[in-house]
Amino acid sequence: MSVIVQKYGGTSVADLSQIRNVANRIAKTYDQGNDVVVILSAMAGITDSLIDMASDVTKSPDKRELDVLLATGEQTTSALLAITLKSMNYPAQSLLGHQAEVLTDQCHGNARIIDIRAKKIKELLEKRNIVVVAGFQGCDPEGNITTLGRGGSDTSAVAIAAAIKADVCEIYTDVDGIYTADPNICDKARKLSVISYDEMLNMASLGAKVLQIRSVGFAKKFNIPIHVKSSFTEEEGTMVVNENSGMERLVVSGVTCDKNQARITLKKVPDQPGIAAKIFTPIAQAGIVVDMIIQNTRAGGKTDLTFTVPNAEFRTALDMEKKIAKEIGADDVFGDENIAKVSVIGVGMKDHSGVASKMFSALAQDNINIMMISTSEIRISCVIEEKYTELAVRVLHTAFGLDKE
Amino acid sequence: MSVIVQKYGGTSVADLSQIRNVANRIAKTYDQGNDVVVILSAMAGITDSLIDMASDVTKSPDKRELDVLLATGEQTTSALLAITLKSMNYPAQSLLGHQAEVLTDQCHGNARIIDIRAKKIKELLEKRNIVVVAGFQGCDPEGNITTLGRGGSDTSAVAIAAAIKADVCEIYTDVDGIYTADPNICDKARKLSVISYDEMLNMASLGAKVLQIRSVGFAKKFNIPIHVKSSFTEEEGTMVVNENSGMERLVVSGVTCDKNQARITLKKVPDQPGIAAKIFTPIAQAGIVVDMIIQNTRAGGKTDLTFTVPNAEFRTALDMEKKIAKEIGADDVFGDENIAKVSVIGVGMKDHSGVASKMFSALAQDNINIMMISTSEIRISCVIEEKYTELAVRVLHTAFGLDKE
Repeated sequence: MSVIVQKYGGTSVADLSQIRNVANRIAKTYDQGNDVVVILSAMAGITDSLIDMASDVTKSPDKRELDVLLATGEQTTSALLAITLKSMNYPAQSLLGHQAEVLTDQCHGNARIIDIRAKKIKELLEKRNIVVVAGFQGCDPEGNITTLGRGGSDTSAVAIAAAIKADVCEIYTDVDGIYTADPNICDKARKLSVISYDEMLNMASLGAKVLQIRSVGFAKKFNIPIHVKSSFTEEEGTMVVNENSGMERLVVSGVTCDKNQARITLKKVPDQPGIAAKIFTPIAQAGIVVDMIIQNTRAGGKTDLTFTVPNAEFRTALDMEKKIAKEIGADDVFGDENIAKVSVIGVGMKDHSGVASKMFSALAQDNINIMMISTSEIRISCVIEEKYTELAVRVLHTAFGLDKE
Repeated sequence: MSVIVQKYGGTSVADLSQIRNVANRIAKTYDQGNDVVVILSAMAGITDSLIDMASDVTKSPDKRELDVLLATGEQTTSALLAITLKSMNYPAQSLLGHQAEVLTDQCHGNARIIDIRAKKIKELLEKRNIVVVAGFQGCDPEGNITTLGRGGSDTSAVAIAAAIKADVCEIYTDVDGIYTADPNICDKARKLSVISYDEMLNMASLGAKVLQIRSVGFAKKFNIPIHVKSSFTEEEGTMVVNENSGMERLVVSGVTCDKNQARITLKKVPDQPGIAAKIFTPIAQAGIVVDMIIQNTRAGGKTDLTFTVPNAEFRTALDMEKKIAKEIGADDVFGDENIAKVSVIGVGMKDHSGVASKMFSALAQDNINIMMISTSEIRISCVIEEKYTELAVRVLHTAFGLDKE
């Protein structure tokens, strides 16, 4: 007998027949003698239409009240699932965020979980109930309803799994696992049977479509195995686990790309202490996230400095830097929106030399020029021309032996 | 400065433009320096469609979970109204049933209010907030969501008004007050400016369309004046108050009718102790509500016994009584669905003799035969043939001087 947390996403509870399908899955798990806690999202599209409704009232709806509105989505599916399970003669009970004691900070719309007491969940499990918890929602210390941000139900699920010391947190969604690359770009991409938390965290652009990245950090902290799988098939999905859990290590587990990047270069910046601060402080104050920063070696007391920002913030950042360039006496400022970042990720590369050179050679072989490089312990990223993005993903996927047979 | 509770029904918050209309009314009351607590229903039709959704899952949805589902309706309107008020720069905050501490018993679907602590409401009012409370919902001592039954938001409003010692509880609806008769039947019906709690309680068939009758009992107990008015006009409505509050007493305040009645007669019942119990116990056990009971004077050790039941339960009750008649040795059982009850109501009749005889004469003048009569302190009811219902209402309305000029 295990303690199993199952989380079902919006497409898995999109209508009453889907909810019945979910109820059957839960019943099966329960009948096998397991303790089952279910975390639900709102029906697909509901959260968006509630946001639209609030936006029809005012451009910037009050955040506390928007949370009260949005919380109805998960309340609806939780009640309907409990009604369905009860009608099948299973002992089920729904709990809202505050009833499940999902305690968060006061940051409405993007609250962070502080603590989950889960007293009621444990009591209900002891009486062999199936506990259905409304995902995405919690309450702050004053009892106000909060929500955990887009995809927050994943974090609800992992946090509740941690609180009740579950054996596994199963995340049911409309895809059947984590792939070595985006199958829409690389048709040889294959499903990974296992991946480490750190790889998952580094594969945000692949993984975020499947799993809220914050939930992975939570799972890592409390060492909760996540099993990502489809609610429409019986297939095994992908396990997201601790890298020391005896998993077979691939040198590279996945190839990702990100076209949402733009590059800004300041030419011939006087190389003096404090210059970098002058260049980046205004951008940080404007809330723009800088990803990669490259500074060339100095030549004649001058240096070139290049960095990347999200596409949406490119114009704002460029205008800022043009002003700054004048102030600090830099020669010129260039911008380029037609770039992309490709990355290879794998915990195995820690112990394998030659991963970087293999990546560079593979790209060179197809005449893909590398504009910027950044590396971390388990990831190497290159900035290239945007038009080569798909080609680069396929080339790297093959070069690192990820293609399916 | 007054403490004012305003309750808006489903048609008053049916869409975003109606909600804005409501927000403007609230803002005006607030700007006059009053403390305002607002109780909201769900958008018109929403509660029914949620019930339909649950019924699509199963014929008898779990009552606890149905309450969780239904509670989303008032949560939605409360959040939207608070968002609207905030966007107009008014300090507003929504509270759900459990946040407003509306404590009820555990009778899901038709819970009764045990206590309202209203600590949070009072705190928010002290800081000059407009408090928006989701009506219809409460929570039981274990923290489960409960609902107060059809029209329960009226009871929420009056109970909260009592808890915060409000000066008045304004009930906004789609009619502009309580009338001396149903205007659809009697075109001379006029709006009452004032009516007593007891009259209102006796005018269920008129009043229930406007106000949940349970809320009137609450208002009477805590002496909270209710002001029933339309949210679509600026007109004064009808005040429902204590009869000792100096109101001018009409002998008769209203004429009501009820076609939802059927009559069952047992002929020549042996007049022995315990017979009445044998006749009525099975019906009570089947949950059928008996309204009027008439027993003729005894003749030859036998008596006739007649009673009325709601139309919907007529067939069930008739079949039961046919079996019972055989067991107790009654001669025969008759049923009649084509009857109606007309009543005149007025606290003034306590002090005026001749009301009954005036009623009987008025009906006789138009050849309307009276089949049964029952009286209470402030009401006289007659059962008549159903086809005379509308005529009877008009005749009595004129006879008691209620016609508008």
